[in-house]
Order: sequence, then structure tokens, then C-alpha cells
Amino acid sequence: MTSENCIFVRIFNNSLRNTTKISMKLVLAEVITIGDEILYGQITDTNTQWMGVELGKLGIKIIQKTSIGDSESEILRILSEAESRADIVLITGGLGPTKDDITKKTLCKYFDDELVINEDALEFITDFFTKRGRELTEINRLQAAIPSRSTYLANKTGTAPGMWFERNGKVFVSMPGVPHEMKYLMNNEVLPRLKTFFKTPVLYHKVIRTIGLGESFLAEKIADWEDNLPKNIKLAYLPSFGQVRLRLTGFGEDENILREQVEAESAKLIPQISKYVYSQEDEELEKALGKTLKAQGFTLSTAESCTGGYISHLITKIPGSSAYFMGSVVSYSNEAKINVLGVKPETLAEFGAVSEETVKQMAEGVRKVMKTDFGIATSGVAGPDGGTIEKPVGTIWIACASESKTVAMKLTLTQQRETNIIYGSVAALNLLRRMINKEIE
Amino acid sequence: MTSENCIFVRIFNNSLRNTTKISMKLVLAEVITIGDEILYGQITDTNTQWMGVELGKLGIKIIQKTSIGDSESEILRILSEAESRADIVLITGGLGPTKDDITKKTLCKYFDDELVINEDALEFITDFFTKRGRELTEINRLQAAIPSRSTYLANKTGTAPGMWFERNGKVFVSMPGVPHEMKYLMNNEVLPRLKTFFKTPVLYHKVIRTIGLGESFLAEKIADWEDNLPKNIKLAYLPSFGQVRLRLTGFGEDENILREQVEAESAKLIPQISKYVYSQEDEELEKALGKTLKAQGFTLSTAESCTGGYISHLITKIPGSSAYFMGSVVSYSNEAKINVLGVKPETLAEFGAVSEETVKQMAEGVRKVMKTDFGIATSGVAGPDGGTIEKPVGTIWIACASESKTVAMKLTLTQQRETNIIYGSVAALNLLRRMINKEIE
Repeated sequence: MTSENCIFVRIFNNSLRNTTKISMKLVLAEVITIGDEILYGQITDTNTQWMGVELGKLGIKIIQKTSIGDSESEILRILSEAESRADIVLITGGLGPTKDDITKKTLCKYFDDELVINEDALEFITDFFTKRGRELTEINRLQAAIPSRSTYLANKTGTAPGMWFERNGKVFVSMPGVPHEMKYLMNNEVLPRLKTFFKTPVLYHKVIRTIGLGESFLAEKIADWEDNLPKNIKLAYLPSFGQVRLRLTGFGEDENILREQVEAESAKLIPQISKYVYSQEDEELEKALGKTLKAQGFTLSTAESCTGGYISHLITKIPGSSAYFMGSVVSYSNEAKINVLGVKPETLAEFGAVSEETVKQMAEGVRKVMKTDFGIATSGVAGPDGGTIEKPVGTIWIACASESKTVAMKLTLTQQRETNIIYGSVAALNLLRRMINKEIE
Repeated sequence: MTSENCIFVRIFNNSLRNTTKISMKLVLAEVITIGDEILYGQITDTNTQWMGVELGKLGIKIIQKTSIGDSESEILRILSEAESRADIVLITGGLGPTKDDITKKTLCKYFDDELVINEDALEFITDFFTKRGRELTEINRLQAAIPSRSTYLANKTGTAPGMWFERNGKVFVSMPGVPHEMKYLMNNEVLPRLKTFFKTPVLYHKVIRTIGLGESFLAEKIADWEDNLPKNIKLAYLPSFGQVRLRLTGFGEDENILREQVEAESAKLIPQISKYVYSQEDEELEKALGKTLKAQGFTLSTAESCTGGYISHLITKIPGSSAYFMGSVVSYSNEAKINVLGVKPETLAEFGAVSEETVKQMAEGVRKVMKTDFGIATSGVAGPDGGTIEKPVGTIWIACASESKTVAMKLTLTQQRETNIIYGSVAALNLLRRMINKEIE
């Protein structure tokens, strides 16, 4: 085996502890985004992050991402540089109908080719405009023109077609920069073709989501299990906001065997950390909780002070949440706490709004008002103002009430308002999860 | 004037209609982000977008942004390429204490230099750990080491120092990749130094935020004014979610003169579009509205169905919002609409939850329950399910109630749940704005 065919890989994650010899050729990709609007900061590029994840799942490694402006000479330069380094060059942007957008012309120059109207593309575009009762202008018609030697990739979500080029065993793909159009083309045209073209290794991923235990404690807890993982299964820790996603990636040649292998390892892992696992399907906490609530026929309501409606927003952005979520009372004022939630004025007077007593009454109150099985509540000092010596910024009380009991917890968070809102919301959802799982008696 | 000193610039925005000769040398920058975690899609890079905007304000143009992994040879290559093209090379990432992070070592190699402990950095780091009651390990101490010929840039937000290098009239800066640390260094150390080092042109920006009129209609409405702008003042249209930000940029040599000039042009513009302007200080709608409410001594509450708490979240993420915001009722169920907001059961039975009648009663109800001057409400079909022929997905009613009247509006939005939630929330806030401004009688 030559060194070219056998590379020490640290694919997928820099927290992989060991590098392992994998007997397969690593496929390398570069991503080029074209457009002044990205350079000048008018838009944030979220495309390349998504592409990194999706390519990684196929075992394709991105070695460089480059953003450049709408300039022919710059595009030609970066294409040539990328071709010298990578097997795959993915290009997004610069495919609009306006004069600014010069990607297609430039690709023609790069490949010494010319634009010709592609009949399939023209049919789609004509249909696109007819259906919307708009006239097909010459400018729109020209969107159906692609370099003659490129393969047309049907973009069913917009008027700019995708294009696939091959040269000396390397692949170039040009796609629109609009995120949902790029994703459509990647999922339906590009990724399946890359898989076939490069005979990429078969990979199987499983993501286990945990909450309530930090990365290093988690790592310590599962060290023995991790050390005994088969060589072809790798573990990555992906932490964010009090949660850690554990990604198991198996690589080999047969998908069915891999799935069995990864699931078997996962089955050994889960019992060791079951208290912290909330999803084995890489779902957000609010989505996993929603499934549990629905399956068990439970309903939920929330009473939010310092989180200001964010918990409610998290829950309701999940489609179908109206099946188990009845509503929320955002009680920013003491009057709302008293009048809508039934918090006792003397409790507020004696203990204050940010207290165990108040937050418990809020959870119990919203449960009664909304007639739900569970009620969760938050009350705290989100900041930057409003802190005192006894209750500094970042002090947040959370509570969860059911028919039989109410539990509360105090959090000591950060100086950052937005961070406190997010952490407080996630912690309140986790308190509910633990109560449903009867971890809290 | 040589062609090098006089460049046809299309700075700041690709919607600038004309290119103009500016008699100043354009300062060019490149941004390099280092770290496998960006390439593999584990984190989204929001730094470079922010940097593009801030550098643009100084008249510095980014010509390329590149992300590469933690590899010495790759870092050396991209540094050399960037040096050949740009005047400024800004490098983020790879400054952590772990072995993965090799930026500092690599910079030494690039500049033929060696790491030495910087006394100021060491004092800061020692203090940082002492204050937190943690022991200073050798690994932490080494964070105070920087290349001997670089200038130490004090990072008061973390343990990785910034570094400033100069060579042949070009500048290199290395900063941590953590967003708030990078921003701290840019604002306090890097941008002021760049301004002095390159004697960048004086720029004056003013951003006017508008809502309720699309980009092309707005452009048509102000075409005469725009055509008559002085040659040194440029206009950019920055649209998003039903809003358009108009950015006026004046460039010249004297800040006071520029400010007067830009403000004078702005003063001519505003009366032509006053109905649509909500901020002349580039603030979010919820922040500008909060100021108005506070100044006029008004209070607000919200009743949200399809927006699920998102309006409340927008309002409460603004510090100090408790001064004018009393709370929200997220009434996802009909019971909550009836029991908490006082919507009449017969209204729900006759017209349904998504109707003018219901949304008006919700706005009036929350106003009474929360005892506020204004109440705003939303009720609609966010999707993806729940649509009917009469009320398809994207149908959203919004309402605003004051003591003297209640107004409602029907919106016809998209198929996308999250988009509908955002648009619906913004539209409801805008309805309140128009009511406070007495545009709706």
C-alpha cells in the first residue's frame, strides 16, 4: 500500500483521541463561495457548515473553504489552486440572472467551453414562469444556458441550474448560493453522484444526545467503553449549551454489518449514561420531549419570567406541538404573576420574584390555569441590570409541577443576558424530562 | 495619479449602481480562519461576517476569506499567498492551550522568530487564574508566550493573547477564534491600530431602518433623491424579513464635514419615506419600539397563538424591557384563549381560532388581563400541517388593541413554519408601531 492510499486520518472530529490507519483513499474537497455580499459581511455563510457535515458523512474531507468576490481573475485563480489540491471542487453562488453574477461565463473560460441552452433546463424555467403567470424574459431564458460539456443538474427549487464537470478524474460542481436551493441540489444530485463516482467508504453514524453532564465527566465515565471500541468505530464529543452530542461513526464496506456493529456498541454505552441520554436520533431536546409527552398522553404549559417566552418558542417551533403544548404565561410583571398565575402577593413580598417559593407557585399556577399535566416555570435575573448581592445577575430559579409534586432548582449562570435565557430554558426543559422519567422523587 | 492609487471602487455593497473614482489607495485585507472544527462543520463561522462589516466601515476591503485546518504546511502556504495579495492578513483560531492548536508555533516559523514569555501577558494570565481560584499550570503559563518580534495585544476576555506583526508595510494579526474574544480585540486593539497604520479614508455611516415597503418600491420612491446624492455619498439597500436597511456612506477627509453632509442628505430623505422609517440608529424594531414605549410611558402585552412566544422573546431579549413589557399569554389551546384571554366560545365556534374576530378579542383580552396600554395578538396557521382550503398554511391574523380601538390585519405568508413565525412576529410589532404613530385611525 502506498502512502497515498493509506493515510493517517483524523476525520470528522479533532477530539478523536487516536489516529487510525484506514485502508482507503481519502477523498478531498474544497468549497468556493463566490459573491461580494459574503466578503462584505452582508450575509453570513451557513452553507459551508452544512456542506462540511454532509460531506463528512460520506467520508469526504474538506481541506479548504474560500470566499472570493465576483471577479473573473480571482475565480480563475482559485479554481486552478483548488484543482491542484482537491478531488472535488464545490462552487456556490454567482448564478443569478444579473450582470454581477459571472460564475457561468468564468467556468466556460476555465474549461475552454461555451454556453449552450440546455433543453431540460429551458423546459423547467419556462414552466416555472408560466405557472406563476409571469413572462419569460430573455434574461430568464439565458439562465437555461450551461457550458456545453457540463452535465445539467435539475434544480427544482429555483431558476438557476446546477452544473457538474469532470476533468482528469476530478469533479467540479457549480450550484446557486441560496441555502435551500444548494441543499436541494446536494441532497438530490450531488451527494448521490459523488458517492458513486468516488466509491466513498460506507459510513454509519449514530448520534446520542445527552444533557446534564459536562464533556470531561462524560469522557471519564465512558473511558473503558471508549477504549474497547473496535478500530473502525470512532467517537466524537460535540458540546453546546450544557449538552453533549456523542457521535459514533463506523466505517467499512457493508452498511448492514456496520449498522449492527454501531448499534451493538451503542447498546453497551446507553446503560452507563442512561440518566443523561435524551435522544438516540439526534433530535433537539424540545423535539424529543414533545415525542415523550405525546406518546404518554401528557400535556404541558409554561410560566416564564426571565426566559421571556423563549421556552415557549422552542416548543412551538416544532411542528405538531399543539398536540401536547397548551400555552404559556410570560409573567414579566408581578401583577401578571399574581393575577394570571395566582402567585400569592405575600410570597412576592417576603421572598421576591426570584425565589424558590415564587417559581414553584408559578409552575403550579400555570398548570391549573392551562389545565395541563405538567407546568414548568422560570424566574431569575437575566441581566445585565437588576442584580443584587444576594441575587446577582445569572441567578435563575426553575421549577416543574405535576399533579403530585413540585420541584425547584437554582441555577447560577453567566453575565450575558442571551446566554442566560438559552441556558435557563434548556435547564427547565431538562427538569421536566427528569420528572417524567421519575429521576426526581 | 497612477492606476494603483486610483481604483474604480465598488466598495461596501454590490447594489451600488455606479462605480466612482475615489482618489485614495484601497486597503485590501484577507481573513484566515484556522481550525478543523470549521472545516468539518462543527461550528458555523460568524466571525468573518462581523469582520467584513467592521473593516468595511474603515474602507478596508476584504478580498478573500479562507478556512483551513490545523496543519502547519497549509497555514504556511495560505499565509504566504495572502501576504502576496493583501495589505492586512487577519488570522483567527488555533490559539488554545492544547496540542491541536499550532498557530503560534507556525507564525514563528513563518516570521523566522521564536516564542518568548511576554511579561504583560503572563501577569494577566496569572491574575486571571488567581481570581478564579485555579492553579496556573505550565500549559497555561505557555499561553503568555508570543513571537519575540510581535506586539502583544491585550485580550481582557480570555487567556489567549492577540499578536500584531509588521513586515514590508503589511500587517498580520493573530486572534483567538472565540467570537467575543475576537470582537474585543478587534474593537479595542486591532481596528484603532489599522486606522492609524494605513491612514484609511474617513468614512461616516448612517443606517436608516425601514419596514413595510419592498426594496424595489423603496428604490423607485427615492430615485430622484438618490440620483442627486453627492458623488462621495453612496447608498446601499440591505433587505431582510420585510425590512430594508438603507445605509448611507460618506467618504472624505474630515469627519465633522462628512457627518454634516450625510445628515443633511438623510434629512432630505426621511420626509419622503417617514411612514416606513422606524430607526435612524440601526436598531432592531423591538428595540426602537421599546424606546418609544418607554419615552411615552406606555406599557405592552402580547397574546400569541401561531407565533408561540417569539414576539415575547424578541421584546424580552432587549435589556430593560421589563420597564414597558408586562407579559404575554401564549394561548395555543382554545381553552387558554377562553379561560385566560376571555375570548368568547361562540366566536371560536362561529369564526374559528384563525379569524379577525378571535384575534381582536385576544388583543383586547390580554390588554385587560395584563393591564397594559396596548395589546398585540397573533393567530394563524404556521404549518406545515393544519391548513384548509379557506385558511391555507401561511394565513395569519394579527391585531393591536388600545383603550380606544382595535385593528386587525390578515397576512398571507409562506409554507415554512419558522419563516411564518418570524414574519408574523415582525408584522405584529409593525402594526403596533403604526398605531402608536397614529397612522391607523
